[in-house]
Formats: sequence, structure tokens, C-alpha cells
Amino acid sequence: MSHPSDLQPHPAPKLTVVGAGIGDPDLITLKAVKAIQSADIILYDALVNKDLLNHAPLQSARIYVGKRRAHKAFSQDEINEIIVSYARHYGHVVRLKGGDPFMFGRGLEEMQYAEDHGVETHYIPGVSSAIAGPGAAGIAVTLRGIARSCWILTATTDTGALNPEIRLAAQTDTTVVILMGLSKLAEISAVFEAAGKGQLPVAIVQNASLPDQHTVFGTVANIEQKMQSVGKDGPAVIVLGEVVRNHLRPQKIATTVLTQAL
Amino acid sequence: MSHPSDLQPHPAPKLTVVGAGIGDPDLITLKAVKAIQSADIILYDALVNKDLLNHAPLQSARIYVGKRRAHKAFSQDEINEIIVSYARHYGHVVRLKGGDPFMFGRGLEEMQYAEDHGVETHYIPGVSSAIAGPGAAGIAVTLRGIARSCWILTATTDTGALNPEIRLAAQTDTTVVILMGLSKLAEISAVFEAAGKGQLPVAIVQNASLPDQHTVFGTVANIEQKMQSVGKDGPAVIVLGEVVRNHLRPQKIATTVLTQAL
Repeated sequence: MSHPSDLQPHPAPKLTVVGAGIGDPDLITLKAVKAIQSADIILYDALVNKDLLNHAPLQSARIYVGKRRAHKAFSQDEINEIIVSYARHYGHVVRLKGGDPFMFGRGLEEMQYAEDHGVETHYIPGVSSAIAGPGAAGIAVTLRGIARSCWILTATTDTGALNPEIRLAAQTDTTVVILMGLSKLAEISAVFEAAGKGQLPVAIVQNASLPDQHTVFGTVANIEQKMQSVGKDGPAVIVLGEVVRNHLRPQKIATTVLTQAL
Repeated sequence: MSHPSDLQPHPAPKLTVVGAGIGDPDLITLKAVKAIQSADIILYDALVNKDLLNHAPLQSARIYVGKRRAHKAFSQDEINEIIVSYARHYGHVVRLKGGDPFMFGRGLEEMQYAEDHGVETHYIPGVSSAIAGPGAAGIAVTLRGIARSCWILTATTDTGALNPEIRLAAQTDTTVVILMGLSKLAEISAVFEAAGKGQLPVAIVQNASLPDQHTVFGTVANIEQKMQSVGKDGPAVIVLGEVVRNHLRPQKIATTVLTQAL
């Protein structure tokens, strides 16, 4: 593949921002697969299942631009520039992101930057870990008679502090779903304890829908202790709410969803 | 097809509760398609795109069990009984639901009933209208610097009253997403007005991802008036929050996502 600056501009630069789902490579949409099949370049994140790259044309380029915790392969500004540069020179850039690109995915930022630089953009939604992560562990985030809503939050602000909205959420009866929150678990528990919710059921679902899916059930008061023997690698979803008590046998679900051919 | 009572029990009764996505038939997962392809019976809801039934085996039975507004084809108890009876006599029942089955979908209730009656159950998540509905109109429910969370609510309680949590949500800075709320729009607007949020941006997305997708943008103060000239049929998502102001040219997105073959 030549360096972009050596090439003539492509007549139809295009960016498709695609939700890759939550882990199981079959949890991607038909529309997303069609987009990958027509990609010239694929830029993919850490949480994307690498098996999805098998849908891409053999001659397409696949570029890892992910970040995990403190380690960034590229800054967001660099990713934005790569998208525009590669779309202009090679045509169709597919930006493959875990979950849904518009749920803490910065997909809209990338689309806005590309549009501002003359690149046509498309959005293809994905299965979000905020709903399907708990679901894979047998937990419905809403449940008749139990929860009429769910509040989905990121654990931290841009500066790394605890998201102050978690304090507000702890004072309601909504199901609280916290993404990217394992490193803040002690602070989150303290906030719910302070709201008088020490006995509120909690579940932490790691690697949802993957063969190593693992769920820890507990309460606000004991979840930290229960997590101490568990590895904290991989993506995790924290669910706090009465719906956790009403979960459907999670081991069974995890096993059948994951290992049984449909 | 014989009446169930004429038949011998099936050796492996099974229920798969499947998210059908938000409208566009390509917004279903590969895993969901595989489940439909192996169905003996499909029970589908009103919001499910009928084109998805084309994935089903020719000899499978397709039964509409949807309800729209006041008109119910079957009660929930009847649906639960149909699932168990048909799984026992015919084998694999696929329960196809709009969006994700665990987001106001009663999927877990049906799975619990089936498990309690000896039927093996599986959950396959779907693209949820709570996230992808706004997304199809170019709105990211979370956005760096604008919204660190989103609160997804149903508009009504079981008795048809306004969900009281909407009052709490109106007092926060989270993105508020309300499903099944068009008939409550006046009350919702009044609640946000009372919280001093008359100028908060609002979008109402109808028939998201379908050829007749239609989005109305406004503010809490004027959204009701703007909706008066719009038909209120079809599913709708109401989004209230500053993220609406930062939407990406929605007409463009709707057109390209919908009509361009990938």
C-alpha cells in the first residue's frame, strides 16, 4: 500500500462508523457486515472482536487504533486525521467500534470531523454493552413491576474523577448501569452506601457474550470484597438495582448463548 | 399444522428470545438470523419488520402476537402459554421482538415462564431504539463535553399515568430518552417546563431507520406545537438534552443510512 501522499484523490471518500457489538462475533448486524465487506480500510478499536476482520476484502488494510486504559495507539486527533486522509486517498473507511458508536464511542465526533473535511459519513448502530452486557448475564435492565427506566453512565469525567451524576443516580430507584467503571468500584460503592443502599443488589459482568464471560453477583456492601479474587482485565459492565435480584439463571444463559450452535 | 394437543411431546423444547432491531431489516444480528433460520415457530410483535420472516424456513409457522396501543392480539398470559405449548409440541420457538428484548420488551418474563415450564431458553440481544433511534437522526445520546450519561425511560406506568421518574430526570443534566411517549408529550413538556427547561433542545424520531423516518427538532417550549402537523403513527423516540443541539445533519444521515446500498 502506497503512502497516501503519493496517490491521487479518491473520487468518493466515505466513512462508515460501525457498531461491532459486545464480543461474540455473531452479535454484529447484517448491515455492519455489508459495510465491512465493502471497506478499503478498516480502523478498529481494542474491544472489537478480531474475527470480524474476516468479513473484510482480502486487499483491504486493517489498522488497529485502539486504546486500552493508559495505552493509546493513536490520539483522537490522529485518528480523525487518519480517517480523512485514508478516505480521500483510498475510498471507503470503515471505523469499527465496540458496542454502539454513539454510546461513549466518539463516533459522532469522528463523523463530524470527516463531514467538515468533505467526507460522506454513515452510521450503523450496534448492540450496546449497556443493555446486552447485563442481558448476557440474565439481567433485564428494565422489568415490569421492578424498574421503569435505566440510567447508563460512564464512571469518570475527562479528568478521571468519579462522574458526579452517579451520586444523583444512587438516590433514585432506576437501574444504574455503569460502563468502564471497575477501577472506580470502591468509590461507586461508597456513593451508594452513603445513599443508604448497602443492600442493593449489584452484578458485574465481564467479557459479556465471550467464552470467558464471568459474572459476580453481590450487594453494594460486599461487591468489592467479592471482586478481589477476580481478574479485572477485559471490559466490564456494573449493574446496580433490584432487577439484578430477578436475574434469570445466569450461568445457564452464559453457557447456552455462548457455546451452543444455533 | 396439527393442533398441539394432537401431537407427541417434542424431545427438545426451546425458546429463543430475539431482538429484531429498530426497523431496517439489515439491522438484525447474524446470531438472530441463524436463530430464525432454525425456527419451527416464530411469534412476532407489531414493531418487527415483516421482511425478517423471509429468513425463516418455508415450513415454519409465523404467528403475529403483537399489540399496538389498545389493540392486543393476545394477552401476555396467552403469549406465555402459546410459547410453552408450541415449544413442547413443535420444538424451537423464536420470539421476535422489536429493539432489544430486555429493554421494555418483557423478554425476561417470557423466558422465566418458559424455564419454569421446562423449556430451555436463549437470549439474543438486538439494536435498541433507545440508542439507535436517536442515532439514526444523527444524535449521539452521549457526547464528550456535553453528556456523560443517558437515562432511558418508558413514558407511562402500568396504570397509564406518567412515569414519575421523568420528573427526577428533568432535574438532571443527563440526556433523557423516552420510549412510547408520544401520547404523553404534553405532560412531558410540562414537567420539563416546570424544571426551568423550556429552552432545552428536543428531538422526536419516528420510524427510525425506515424509509419513512421523520425527525422533528424543537425545544421543550415548542415541540408540541411542531408535532401538531405530524402524523403520530409508528414508533417514536423522544430525546431531550443538549446532545440534540449537537446533532449531525439529520436529513443527510437518514437519507444515506436508509437508501444507499452498502
